[in-house]
Amino acid sequence: MKIVIVGGVAGGMSAATRLRRLNEEAEIVVLEKGPYVSFANCGLPYYISGEISEREDLLVQTPESLRARFRIDVKPFHEVLEIKPDEKQVVVQNQAETFEMSYDKLILSPGAKPITPPIPGLNDTKNLFTVRSVPDVDAIERFIQEKIPQKAVVIGAGFIGMEMAESLARRGMQVTIVEKAPHVLPPLDVEMAVRVEQELTKNNINLRLGKGATAFRDKGRQIELEDGEVLISELTIFSIGVAPETSLAQAAQIKTGLRGGIIVDENYETSAKDVYAIGDAIVVKQEVSQQDALISLASPANRQGRMLADIIFGKARPNKGFLGTAIVRVFDLAAAATGLNEKALQEAEIPYTAVHIQGKSHASYFPGNTPLLLKVLFEKESGRILGAQAVGENGVDKRIDILATAIKAGMTICDLPELEFTYAPPFGSAKDPVNMAGYAGLNLLEGLSENIQWHELEAERAKGAVLLDVRSQAEIEKGKIKGSIHIPLDELRTRVSELEKDVPIVVTCQVGLRGYLAERILKNTGYQAKNLDGGFSLYQTILPEEVE
Amino acid sequence: MKIVIVGGVAGGMSAATRLRRLNEEAEIVVLEKGPYVSFANCGLPYYISGEISEREDLLVQTPESLRARFRIDVKPFHEVLEIKPDEKQVVVQNQAETFEMSYDKLILSPGAKPITPPIPGLNDTKNLFTVRSVPDVDAIERFIQEKIPQKAVVIGAGFIGMEMAESLARRGMQVTIVEKAPHVLPPLDVEMAVRVEQELTKNNINLRLGKGATAFRDKGRQIELEDGEVLISELTIFSIGVAPETSLAQAAQIKTGLRGGIIVDENYETSAKDVYAIGDAIVVKQEVSQQDALISLASPANRQGRMLADIIFGKARPNKGFLGTAIVRVFDLAAAATGLNEKALQEAEIPYTAVHIQGKSHASYFPGNTPLLLKVLFEKESGRILGAQAVGENGVDKRIDILATAIKAGMTICDLPELEFTYAPPFGSAKDPVNMAGYAGLNLLEGLSENIQWHELEAERAKGAVLLDVRSQAEIEKGKIKGSIHIPLDELRTRVSELEKDVPIVVTCQVGLRGYLAERILKNTGYQAKNLDGGFSLYQTILPEEVE
Repeated sequence: MKIVIVGGVAGGMSAATRLRRLNEEAEIVVLEKGPYVSFANCGLPYYISGEISEREDLLVQTPESLRARFRIDVKPFHEVLEIKPDEKQVVVQNQAETFEMSYDKLILSPGAKPITPPIPGLNDTKNLFTVRSVPDVDAIERFIQEKIPQKAVVIGAGFIGMEMAESLARRGMQVTIVEKAPHVLPPLDVEMAVRVEQELTKNNINLRLGKGATAFRDKGRQIELEDGEVLISELTIFSIGVAPETSLAQAAQIKTGLRGGIIVDENYETSAKDVYAIGDAIVVKQEVSQQDALISLASPANRQGRMLADIIFGKARPNKGFLGTAIVRVFDLAAAATGLNEKALQEAEIPYTAVHIQGKSHASYFPGNTPLLLKVLFEKESGRILGAQAVGENGVDKRIDILATAIKAGMTICDLPELEFTYAPPFGSAKDPVNMAGYAGLNLLEGLSENIQWHELEAERAKGAVLLDVRSQAEIEKGKIKGSIHIPLDELRTRVSELEKDVPIVVTCQVGLRGYLAERILKNTGYQAKNLDGGFSLYQTILPEEVE
Repeated sequence: MKIVIVGGVAGGMSAATRLRRLNEEAEIVVLEKGPYVSFANCGLPYYISGEISEREDLLVQTPESLRARFRIDVKPFHEVLEIKPDEKQVVVQNQAETFEMSYDKLILSPGAKPITPPIPGLNDTKNLFTVRSVPDVDAIERFIQEKIPQKAVVIGAGFIGMEMAESLARRGMQVTIVEKAPHVLPPLDVEMAVRVEQELTKNNINLRLGKGATAFRDKGRQIELEDGEVLISELTIFSIGVAPETSLAQAAQIKTGLRGGIIVDENYETSAKDVYAIGDAIVVKQEVSQQDALISLASPANRQGRMLADIIFGKARPNKGFLGTAIVRVFDLAAAATGLNEKALQEAEIPYTAVHIQGKSHASYFPGNTPLLLKVLFEKESGRILGAQAVGENGVDKRIDILATAIKAGMTICDLPELEFTYAPPFGSAKDPVNMAGYAGLNLLEGLSENIQWHELEAERAKGAVLLDVRSQAEIEKGKIKGSIHIPLDELRTRVSELEKDVPIVVTCQVGLRGYLAERILKNTGYQAKNLDGGFSLYQTILPEEVE
């Protein structure tokens, strides 16, 4: 059997090596249009920052090492120009010639390409780069060394945008991030993203949010924004997102779907017989919503490559869908997400409840603990966990990995209190934030507690609710939500008669825990009460103008 | 309703506060024989080390704070002398008097007590301490300040023994650990524990393993061991384990079971009506084996306290059992375990397969990564995950927490490759060690690979197998298993005819990955091959005498 693989990074190479492990006889050819295969995609920004100091460290495998170890015929600088599914041939161009190559099975792993919208002046820029390949970062590195830019602009505040902004700042540049959306990191909801924005600002990164770039002038040295502001940029990174690289598939009449992604069946076979596709280029099922999605991440690509190799050699490996778990480091912070966020849940019309836990990375009585903001989204009624997000200096990856596992297992919010985690003071807490999210969610699900989100407060008050702040006098003096009344939690039982019984109450405290305790006292005493989820600290980061 | 709780730490206090949140009317009384309630049990060793510098940080709550916030009547220095279940009374002694107190519901949360076997001379020691309470560490601290001990002995190498050995070493003492079992940390299997022993030795801790203390002489200044060796000790910590504190329950004819633990039903009710028990004192179901077990950990105790409060107020919270997930820091290392280890699986007669992954805490191409040794045990045939252990500097807690979640979810080893974790170079790898354990396990389950463990090699060779080492020449020269033959992996295809077809082969490499690749080449070429799990590096740490 002759298996030809188009694209030699992540999915393509995972497929190639697994194919060989399953079968010694097959002829396995990898055609890669670029100079490198199997490079550390996700390490590219860290090469610019200097943290990965050796360029070779980006090159995980070479054609020679793959040939020696796996007897795979890896051909860099070989671009596939055309697929002829009926003839089972591909047309290939290398530096010397154009020729046809036959296949028994063809695997497309072309990846994704950076989106570059038709902004006036874009094609005349001399200082604009994307970050997808080793040649990309070679070009950036060369540019930095030659031109010594002082001012840089990053357009697009997704994961790569964040990493590049930090990397350029570490190289001494004054960096401005431009993002069309109202907040950075679209996989996060706004109240989570605000923490990341604070970290960026703290590190002297300028933010221009809610407005896109509308024109490039002076060969890219001037970038005009929607509101007319003109930014000076000596080096611009374009990172507004990626789109499936599927021109080859489309030209061969292979069916594509969502935003041009290649449609595959549960065995990763495309509409053309014996042509398979994997990685960033394909449409997958989002596992929570079961809707079509594009997921550009290394782990699913690797997984798909391996699954496909198994499938080709007769093992059943049905593609059940993917969650899309991701993390980014932003200076001292980490921000991560898994499953669906609020925006995606609304689009999918899945009714949900949100719960925020403001905990610590490890035991609060042990030195070195850092704040951790965890958000869990679960389905109303069933309690099924739908998504999670976290921001903090430490332990963010752990909590999101646990919750990604819980989602894969089909767990509900009621299962989270049952989870038994490693606990010693340097590592965790007897009640981990994940357990706490479960406790809080279970209370909500069983009606023991009712919460409202920061954006729901105004409506509650408009309906006549009073806002009761149960923090201490000292805390109140540092700032409170406008118009709130104040009874410290520990005085609530004795002063509860100060509150009118028939007026609904929204309770708040610093992070939401004391608010819940007050809510319980009030409910047990015959009052109507709801708790402001995340408390004052979460509210003030998003609506500082509502604080006095 | 009057609810009386005996014991004001962890489970007892979790029950008390939850009871109040559910009900404002109930009278809730906590009787604690010691001076403190709700203290940070797990922080005690770190107070001795000086890492927790303020003694108050150990005291999470006080009777006053609990009264103010939860209207709980917390009575320190109140020891319960007797339970009279028929009369629904307890006999209580405080510093002034002995009196009877009635209850409607009684919750026993007495905890566990250190085991002190009848070793000759034990009662005459003046320098021997246990570590269970704040007064315990006050006494140790006072002793250290007054006597300035230079030589310390820790008897018992469990979790607290490890923490105390490190704490005393940090205080400048020369520390020797004595352990009757052949290795430290009984929840770990030996090849995992050996890594911890190396870390202890590296940090100048002396180890006396496989022998117990048989006598104390000279008021404890001399400790005689089984083999006749006499250790000089100026300060001795006794940490050989704990036993349920159930004398009170037994005197009241309440049924006890395994090692004296209180037997409870699925609602935590004891054999006496309206008498409940939680925490270290009760017999639980080990969730994997469904056999009786004693688990002395803070998290399950907290969980049980809260569940019981819910049950008392009419919510169904069936006690499904506990896993027993635990972690300990040993100098720069962390060691953790969840579920069952090999010894426990053998006792429970559950057929299992073990797989070891020697990975990295995060991407191998990103600076700061550290080695991580992960072991996963799964059921033969079904693949159900039964237990996991990990040792390493970073990321140990994360992997064991993920696997504890997977076990709770009833996942099999085949589910692990599907898990999608946060991946960016500073946090993880595109294929996390947990995924890798899944890939390896799936290969074993499907017969694509067969592994043998370090302790099985001798028998395989006795049956005629040859041991083939596929590492590079440079690696071989640094050491290899005695009598192994050598073909580097990348030469195996061309030199495979050097091997006899009808002789079974055990393949080894450094960590097990190349061994697996060689095993696949051999199997695909018609040879019988098995892979030495964990490779040379794991083997040599346990059997250095078999290395040349």
